[in-house]
Amino acid sequence: MPKKSSSTKNLRSALRIDPEDGVVDLADYSPRKITTGPDSRKASLAALEDLGAELVDLQTRLYADGVAGEQRSVLLVLQGMDTSGKSGVIDHVVGLVGPEGTHIRAFKKPTEEERAHDFLWRIKRELPGPGMIGVFDRSHYEDVLVTVVHDQIDDAERLRRYRTINEFEAGLVAAGTTVIKCFLNISYDEQRERLLARLDDETKNWKFNVDDITERRMWPEYQKAYAEALAATSTEVAPWYAIPSDRKWYRNWAVGVLLRDTLRDLDPRYPKTDLDIPQLKRRLAPPN
Amino acid sequence: MPKKSSSTKNLRSALRIDPEDGVVDLADYSPRKITTGPDSRKASLAALEDLGAELVDLQTRLYADGVAGEQRSVLLVLQGMDTSGKSGVIDHVVGLVGPEGTHIRAFKKPTEEERAHDFLWRIKRELPGPGMIGVFDRSHYEDVLVTVVHDQIDDAERLRRYRTINEFEAGLVAAGTTVIKCFLNISYDEQRERLLARLDDETKNWKFNVDDITERRMWPEYQKAYAEALAATSTEVAPWYAIPSDRKWYRNWAVGVLLRDTLRDLDPRYPKTDLDIPQLKRRLAPPN
Repeated sequence: MPKKSSSTKNLRSALRIDPEDGVVDLADYSPRKITTGPDSRKASLAALEDLGAELVDLQTRLYADGVAGEQRSVLLVLQGMDTSGKSGVIDHVVGLVGPEGTHIRAFKKPTEEERAHDFLWRIKRELPGPGMIGVFDRSHYEDVLVTVVHDQIDDAERLRRYRTINEFEAGLVAAGTTVIKCFLNISYDEQRERLLARLDDETKNWKFNVDDITERRMWPEYQKAYAEALAATSTEVAPWYAIPSDRKWYRNWAVGVLLRDTLRDLDPRYPKTDLDIPQLKRRLAPPN
Repeated sequence: MPKKSSSTKNLRSALRIDPEDGVVDLADYSPRKITTGPDSRKASLAALEDLGAELVDLQTRLYADGVAGEQRSVLLVLQGMDTSGKSGVIDHVVGLVGPEGTHIRAFKKPTEEERAHDFLWRIKRELPGPGMIGVFDRSHYEDVLVTVVHDQIDDAERLRRYRTINEFEAGLVAAGTTVIKCFLNISYDEQRERLLARLDDETKNWKFNVDDITERRMWPEYQKAYAEALAATSTEVAPWYAIPSDRKWYRNWAVGVLLRDTLRDLDPRYPKTDLDIPQLKRRLAPPN
């Protein structure tokens, strides 16, 4: 059950998915209702803009730490139904950090080469290096969502994959990567509006795929697959957050704050160097 | 020899490196003198900011084209001495495009795995997909620069690598990738100032590597290696541009305009779709 909180300080605990007796009921997580944070588009955009400089500073420090030998990084996993706003978060939130500090990868339908390997193979190749913020637009979770809805794997394999994922993520965390998993939670009605908008705008027609309607018909199956996957993989070390995403401005603000708070907790600092600065300056001086 | 031009329209021809009788003399290319474009920091920043929206629009169209089956992409290769501003270009120019449309890769000293393969292996894994702008912070050119200065390859191998690179790039271009290669041209004196700045600012100390001074001592050898490599690989299909880079604001503006002009020439358009929009809208309508 989501906790109620009016303080931004507790955004993570307010949005975190905590399975009760191993079960998640998505009805407990509103795509629209705001329990904490700004309550208008304007306030939200202003707050997000203020976040930009802090995100850049924190990531730069984390990277500097990495150059000095620390192995810490952050991995932001974005999952959600079509139109839920994975690209929007990347453009409006991750974009604040700047391209040098982020490693972004969109995972599409697996290629032939990718299918020839286990489902984590392509994931492991795209993990963030020290000091970097990695961002996954879709992820290894597709392999316990699409595959389940389309009956490509059976129950035993599904459960095995949950365990594999939990072990994999626990290993990442142990090696210094903080994992933030965001379920961008939109409603069935909001998805309709966004699909219609793609049809109404000629410059967005190309984003429309007729398959989107077929997948939309399986909405209840997807909700069930999400609920089960979230319940099985929202762990202490790598929890899921349900981001109310019917309002784009709230969604962006919330992911921005989760990222900022995570980085703040890491408290990255510019490393002390053992440079002999006066001597180096002499060496750099032009010859007389 | 660089051509003189006062028109922004001709920036590419003004900055293009055209070997004469197969030779490039870097003395012909000033790191500081501006032959075309804005002549003040303020004008330059304003012009670059104006470029942002156009770059986003052009890249979005190129990507939409890619979804519709076109295979066009752009590859921006950034090379230059330490402190020449490769990261700065990525943050201030590539950052304008937004993270969804760019694929950025910094090539550092090759790893053991990378060294076990031919020098283009790691490059080929990071090429931009359809509709994307790929950006290389250092590149396969390190393998005809660092290796030459440090006597790791002999002349025969160096010449063989130039040919391999030219064939590789010609293949990229034939397959739909427009290649823009920028040599960020800074002076020996400007490098000193930038290295000193890293020593003077505690939050920049971590960027300072004592090896940078050792490499700096080989400035003439690097200039020679660059001149030879640029002469051998500035081809009709994949030319090099010498970007005057002693002034950061001019450097950023110039790369931004090269990128913009390249995208304009590609003239990407939103694809016509064969969607039956009225029918799709009916299918999306909620049941009565």
